Amino acid sequence: MTLRTTLDFLLYDWLAAPVLTERERFSDHSRETFDAVLDTCERIAREKYAPHNRTVDTQEPHFDGEKVILPQATHDAHKAFVESGMMSAAQDYDIGGMQLPYTVQAAANSFFAMASVSIGSNMLTSGNANLLMVHGTEMQKQVFALNEFSGRWAGTMCLSEPQAGSSLSDVATRAVPDGEDYESDPLGPRYRLTGHKMWISAGDHELTENIVHIVLAKIPDENGKLIPGTRGISLFIVPKRMVDTEGQLTGERNDVALAGLNHKLGWRGTTNTLLNFGEGKYPVGGKAGAVGYLVGKPGKGLACMFHMMNEARIGVGTAATMLGMAGYYASLDYAKSRPQGRPVGPEGKDASRPQVRIIEHADVRRMLLAQKSYAEGALALELYCARLVDEHKTGEAQAADDARLLLEVLTPIAKSWPSEWCLEANSLAIQVHGGYGYTRDFPVEQYWRDNRLNMIHEGTHGIQAADLLGRKVLMEEGRGLQLLAGRIQQTIARSASVPRLAPHAKALGAALEQVGKATREAWATGNPRDALINAVPYMQAFGHMVLAWLWLDVAERALALDADAAQPATAGRLGATDYFFHYELPKIGAWLQVVESRDATCVDLHEDAF
Amino acid sequence: MTLRTTLDFLLYDWLAAPVLTERERFSDHSRETFDAVLDTCERIAREKYAPHNRTVDTQEPHFDGEKVILPQATHDAHKAFVESGMMSAAQDYDIGGMQLPYTVQAAANSFFAMASVSIGSNMLTSGNANLLMVHGTEMQKQVFALNEFSGRWAGTMCLSEPQAGSSLSDVATRAVPDGEDYESDPLGPRYRLTGHKMWISAGDHELTENIVHIVLAKIPDENGKLIPGTRGISLFIVPKRMVDTEGQLTGERNDVALAGLNHKLGWRGTTNTLLNFGEGKYPVGGKAGAVGYLVGKPGKGLACMFHMMNEARIGVGTAATMLGMAGYYASLDYAKSRPQGRPVGPEGKDASRPQVRIIEHADVRRMLLAQKSYAEGALALELYCARLVDEHKTGEAQAADDARLLLEVLTPIAKSWPSEWCLEANSLAIQVHGGYGYTRDFPVEQYWRDNRLNMIHEGTHGIQAADLLGRKVLMEEGRGLQLLAGRIQQTIARSASVPRLAPHAKALGAALEQVGKATREAWATGNPRDALINAVPYMQAFGHMVLAWLWLDVAERALALDADAAQPATAGRLGATDYFFHYELPKIGAWLQVVESRDATCVDLHEDAF
Repeated sequence: MTLRTTLDFLLYDWLAAPVLTERERFSDHSRETFDAVLDTCERIAREKYAPHNRTVDTQEPHFDGEKVILPQATHDAHKAFVESGMMSAAQDYDIGGMQLPYTVQAAANSFFAMASVSIGSNMLTSGNANLLMVHGTEMQKQVFALNEFSGRWAGTMCLSEPQAGSSLSDVATRAVPDGEDYESDPLGPRYRLTGHKMWISAGDHELTENIVHIVLAKIPDENGKLIPGTRGISLFIVPKRMVDTEGQLTGERNDVALAGLNHKLGWRGTTNTLLNFGEGKYPVGGKAGAVGYLVGKPGKGLACMFHMMNEARIGVGTAATMLGMAGYYASLDYAKSRPQGRPVGPEGKDASRPQVRIIEHADVRRMLLAQKSYAEGALALELYCARLVDEHKTGEAQAADDARLLLEVLTPIAKSWPSEWCLEANSLAIQVHGGYGYTRDFPVEQYWRDNRLNMIHEGTHGIQAADLLGRKVLMEEGRGLQLLAGRIQQTIARSASVPRLAPHAKALGAALEQVGKATREAWATGNPRDALINAVPYMQAFGHMVLAWLWLDVAERALALDADAAQPATAGRLGATDYFFHYELPKIGAWLQVVESRDATCVDLHEDAF
Repeated sequence: MTLRTTLDFLLYDWLAAPVLTERERFSDHSRETFDAVLDTCERIAREKYAPHNRTVDTQEPHFDGEKVILPQATHDAHKAFVESGMMSAAQDYDIGGMQLPYTVQAAANSFFAMASVSIGSNMLTSGNANLLMVHGTEMQKQVFALNEFSGRWAGTMCLSEPQAGSSLSDVATRAVPDGEDYESDPLGPRYRLTGHKMWISAGDHELTENIVHIVLAKIPDENGKLIPGTRGISLFIVPKRMVDTEGQLTGERNDVALAGLNHKLGWRGTTNTLLNFGEGKYPVGGKAGAVGYLVGKPGKGLACMFHMMNEARIGVGTAATMLGMAGYYASLDYAKSRPQGRPVGPEGKDASRPQVRIIEHADVRRMLLAQKSYAEGALALELYCARLVDEHKTGEAQAADDARLLLEVLTPIAKSWPSEWCLEANSLAIQVHGGYGYTRDFPVEQYWRDNRLNMIHEGTHGIQAADLLGRKVLMEEGRGLQLLAGRIQQTIARSASVPRLAPHAKALGAALEQVGKATREAWATGNPRDALINAVPYMQAFGHMVLAWLWLDVAERALALDADAAQPATAGRLGATDYFFHYELPKIGAWLQVVESRDATCVDLHEDAF
């Protein structure tokens, strides 16, 4: 199967994306316009991204003291992406967008992620601009968001700090009012920021004439103290270069300085930076302090930022997914062409016969089918979530609200599951290649290195797990979890009557019950300390249950369209479903056992005993 | 715990290594001499290996057209290792050895593997020389083996070929008699070899004045045909430079040419090469063809080679183990010093309190304890196997034979288990570090890259699994498996009466039964094709059972010496044991389910459906 075949099935046959064109917002669209978008993105990815994936790995960004140098290929890829209009594809017509459903946008972007995950960093720019479209003033939208959508400027998210990492409560970047008239700046209340931001992707480069940083910082109280916790966090636009209300550069640098590039294990096409805000290297109007314009209300920064984070997390999940898919296709090609060894028969091996291609070996097939079930399953998950985004934005009131809540529950899975299992897929892709997979002459080792980032950025595995078990399954009295259970039950009901799928339907029902029980047991004492002690194993089991559900749903749909599984694609979907139910779903027992018993082995051990 | 503390416990308290000194071969030894060896190796590893581990990663070997250039640090490390006498530590006094038990040698070598796994390639040299000591003629021992043990020359194993990889049946390197008098060469029957050998570690370098290749090749029959299968394989000594019977270089190069260096994902301190034998680049006596001296009998090469392979596989397992240990220590240090976030309490988090060190977070502790249970458990496994090697060589007849057979069963686990789970440990070490772990400023990403090799070289995971389920559990009518089961039962019996361990003893008994049942079910049809269909999941379950057994045995011994677990080390061993039994052992159910049902999902799927 090609990626396109899989996308077509998921988008059109499974998610029925064309139904969206019945809604007013998407009424100019049709399957034809969706296909045209997919065609364009597939072509740009093939021509401008894929050929340079190794280049961006070997020619790491470097700083010459003044500018960050990136390979020419990165500039070309950026230009091609911008020209495609994909940066603002989901936006309104009146600001130059194409009102494309997010579902289709996500599908189209998967081509870029598969071709070269790190050559582009457009997700940050469009996410940043999206946030401003929701929380910014008219002027902020006009000046900043629109110039990002047009590709003239790029965007970042500046959350982490060297001393705080995942702990946003401890953000120490300070923002103080800039002069008496600070509230009357047309670009927004004007502050001066000082502090350090770490792990800032695309934090400095010359791909665009300006960079729009969105920065979390705290406004000190009357005593000059920062409010502890996340309540104190506000959000600011801090451009790299100062601009006027027409969106023209004033010629002055803002006081944001590159303190260093991080040298990473992978994902090397995108710069990753430590930025110093307000250290006085580039004083503005003769004064140290980075100029920042408040977005939204003081103290509400994190809530605004989270608006951007759900889509960013789906983006990370999609990146992990497509790396998994890239490794799957590479190792499938290799397995189909590489002759080695012989299958074992009833009498052992007959060495006088010619060697066979390694796809004929049982263990190679196992490794390929595992990859297929991880990567294609993850793609179904990401597109399902993308479809919920569209439903949330354009559905009827009840459906929209359900979609919002389901999305809350599924986002930690959409982020964490592919980042764990498509990394495992990449390891299997190396293994299929044998020694060749361990060399830089084949692409799979890079996929594996690139993918290792995804369990870390945009909220680590641990953060996602605490979010899922500590917040998402509880919110609105567990209504999100109930909604999800309802959807799963619908799939079970539909599949139970299909003989080929009935055993899976039963297994999924049991898994749903197990996860429900574990959720209750985890929270039996009501103390978050007890409940969250094994939040990651809980998330792993929850994720496997979700994936089993999606595979069953996909298989049911595939059989509904091709009852005899006459097409190889249908047979492949059934095979991957069988694999997932036989080899993967049974793993949840081991994970849930420690959750249910609130096993305290790890927390009880004295530190000296480690 | 330091590595030394752990080694001391395992060697002296658990394996009772000093008992070996009651045997004649080791009678000059004592705990003091063992300690002196450990001290020396610990020091050399600290001074000459550890500081240069990153250097050998960044300064990859390169070929200037004539010579392979390695960093000076690699030369210095080699010199220090040779001077320590460890290359021949296990050998007889009369050839300059110290008659050290292999158990102690393996423990001592673990320091080097932890400090820099790829800077040294001494295991290959001593393995090569060991093989010649068993299968070579007196002259071959004198000229080749002794010059390897002295460190004057280095050694390699040349098995794989570009077209054959793991499939040794398909070795195509040819060896033809070299002249009429070929049988009368004092160095052994003289042949001329032609062919290509791939993935040859340390295949070319200037660390030593000569390199002794041990090469698998086939002698054509009277019609010039190569015998298919492994029956046709013979073994040859092929020196890089020609030597005389005194072990002096004659000044002539042998016809072995470096065709290329492989550029790897990790393990970069050791060259990995493609070698061309007999292509005529360096004709000997004016004639193309690499001169090789037959070792042992024609057609018996693979049996001889396997003598070297068991210890090589324990060596690979130990390398994987020590990378796991290195990552554990690095992330433990980091977790103890890095402040970030706050533990969640009954009322949530109190952001006004100072941040805590991340070792106080439940999920970080889980990731640390997982690493400890993987790496320290794997170390117990490797030393247990090393102890079996000593028993096989120096024990009473029955004990020696039992040791041989147990070793056959455990070797695939000793090779595969650490290479899978200590790789996972390294991934967790990265995760504990967060974003920092993904940068090259911290050592853990290199451990992870280096470790990825271990599931591939010296027999892939798939090869080990087929060996375990297809050969080892069946051999001698299953006596090896019965022996292992007997040892496990002994541990169960001893632990069942210790209240703290009784639940684990019960769980281990159940696991043993499950693995036994799966073994029978796998072979129920008697057809290897059915049995081996899920050989890798079988090996994963088998490995987890073995590790659970060893942890229980270690815990039982630790409690016997420190009944109240008053020492942190005892508490740590109990914690790791609890972790393994609660979080890991339950995983075997999912793996064995497909083995028992001879699940054919992967093999039945049509190729087009992938």
